[in-house]
Amino acid sequence: MEHTHISLAHGNGGHFMRELIDDLFARHLSNDILNTSTDAATLPVINGEPVMTTDGFTVKPLEFPGGNIGSLAVHGTVNDLAVAGATPLYLSLNAFIEEGLEISLLDRLIQSLADAAREANVRVVTGDTKVVPHGEGSGLYLATTGIGVRATRQALGMHHIRPGDLVLVSGPVGDHGTAVMLAREQFGLRGDLQSDSASVLPLTQALLPLPGLRFMRDPTRGGLASVMHEIRLATGHGIRLQQASIPIHDPVSVVCEMLGYDPLYLACEGRVVAILSEEDSEAALAAWRELPRGNAAAIIGEITTDQPHIVLQTPLGGTRILEELEDDPLPRIC
Amino acid sequence: MEHTHISLAHGNGGHFMRELIDDLFARHLSNDILNTSTDAATLPVINGEPVMTTDGFTVKPLEFPGGNIGSLAVHGTVNDLAVAGATPLYLSLNAFIEEGLEISLLDRLIQSLADAAREANVRVVTGDTKVVPHGEGSGLYLATTGIGVRATRQALGMHHIRPGDLVLVSGPVGDHGTAVMLAREQFGLRGDLQSDSASVLPLTQALLPLPGLRFMRDPTRGGLASVMHEIRLATGHGIRLQQASIPIHDPVSVVCEMLGYDPLYLACEGRVVAILSEEDSEAALAAWRELPRGNAAAIIGEITTDQPHIVLQTPLGGTRILEELEDDPLPRIC
Repeated sequence: MEHTHISLAHGNGGHFMRELIDDLFARHLSNDILNTSTDAATLPVINGEPVMTTDGFTVKPLEFPGGNIGSLAVHGTVNDLAVAGATPLYLSLNAFIEEGLEISLLDRLIQSLADAAREANVRVVTGDTKVVPHGEGSGLYLATTGIGVRATRQALGMHHIRPGDLVLVSGPVGDHGTAVMLAREQFGLRGDLQSDSASVLPLTQALLPLPGLRFMRDPTRGGLASVMHEIRLATGHGIRLQQASIPIHDPVSVVCEMLGYDPLYLACEGRVVAILSEEDSEAALAAWRELPRGNAAAIIGEITTDQPHIVLQTPLGGTRILEELEDDPLPRIC
Repeated sequence: MEHTHISLAHGNGGHFMRELIDDLFARHLSNDILNTSTDAATLPVINGEPVMTTDGFTVKPLEFPGGNIGSLAVHGTVNDLAVAGATPLYLSLNAFIEEGLEISLLDRLIQSLADAAREANVRVVTGDTKVVPHGEGSGLYLATTGIGVRATRQALGMHHIRPGDLVLVSGPVGDHGTAVMLAREQFGLRGDLQSDSASVLPLTQALLPLPGLRFMRDPTRGGLASVMHEIRLATGHGIRLQQASIPIHDPVSVVCEMLGYDPLYLACEGRVVAILSEEDSEAALAAWRELPRGNAAAIIGEITTDQPHIVLQTPLGGTRILEELEDDPLPRIC
């Protein structure tokens, strides 16, 4: 391409736009279904229950340790399908590109998106690009919509959750939120902490055979605490969490203590929270710990018949109520 | 809701966000599949070929005569499915909302989106909202992804186009682009011209029974001329258009003449360009003219074996070559 930066003409439907789509997007994303000369992709017949989800991405900065907005846009949507018990198949991709964005940066981001899609075994089958004037758009926003398929079997959902069920998490919480925060120059901090951004499909598929599996969710915006509140609201049950059991990487604890954040409210992008019957919880834990991204998995609490609060039991025997998030602890982390 | 304007806390995963989603988005969009307490929607089994498409929307201003970004976000995606020969079924919705946007305006836009979806008989089954800081985002960007179904029958596509085939358009071109332009205060112009934004599904379904139907496209960004260039590039054939046959509303001609735009490059959001065999073209024209939104339909040109140019034949017998769009004639019209 003759340009080094995105201009408004890359969004006008003419030949610069076609060049951008063919030379950059289609070059990375090429597969047997994507056809940039049609506006709609024809998919193979879907055998089973189709599942659909969507997510928007506005992370700042666009690149951070452990990932970037491109890989995140795949993981976010793939993970929403995975925790619904589905196998992700197809993605659509929307890019809102800011005038002036370096084309070499855009190229890296889309290559990373393509790599993440290949790893998760999903194909980007259709897309659209819009260019917005310099000063709007913060470089790049992405939106992805995912289609997956689920064998019609045991349905998962919060309405299956019962008192006595246990709460599991697949790995340390708050890495993504903390890594993105550290990548912002405004904090003047540097660390070697990486985002946990990844496909959770191996983790969710490991639990699907267990009949006591009630519900799974990836704790993104609002973190682990917000998933707990969603369960509380939907079920009317309380949840008691054991603080000492919740895995948290040391650098996350340190940074959060310095800056006054609670890691239980910070986003993960590659973790799963699962609720299982007590009898199946040990099997779930064992299955997760065999996986490379599940070796720090833990049983962290249980569903109670107490007052419908989220109660954190501290190591010294005290308790603290985890309130619902009001102010934004950390904007623009996904 | 206790707020009158969107704040960053409406995007953080906490209870303001849930209020915004439940009290505003879900209230308008409610249907039997949408469930705001899950991240993924389970769809009924799709009988036939699934078709998937996506579109982003950054129109400025957000409201314009004849529509707004909400209705446009439905029509744009529904129409991409319709011109692919499919029946639209489901939409996903992404909203990138700028901090400070009036909630009453957002409410109007999403209500209009919901009305357009009901009219087109599609259901919004999943969605996501992100809030971006004041100064980014221009109020609201939307992205919709659509899933439709197509009976596996005659395939449509540019590769079916042959010399001698005729070019039809379902109605006057350039209304949407001109209406949006007039709605911008910067031009200081006012008129009663309305955007043509609408579902084209009745128009496309009217042509599907015709065996001579080769290809359909809705001429959005870049207008009629850009669709012609896409065909030229894909087929290597030239196209000869009869200027006098191309329907254009008088106010569009007048405004374009005043401001130096060519209506053939301006976006429509409710028109169809169709290529048919000569023998089926009259039947197509008759079918369109019976429809309320097709009464000004016209046969406007033919595919030629001439030089691969888009040639406009003027009423006085002269010819003009329609070049491919380079600069943006009119940014942010969709």
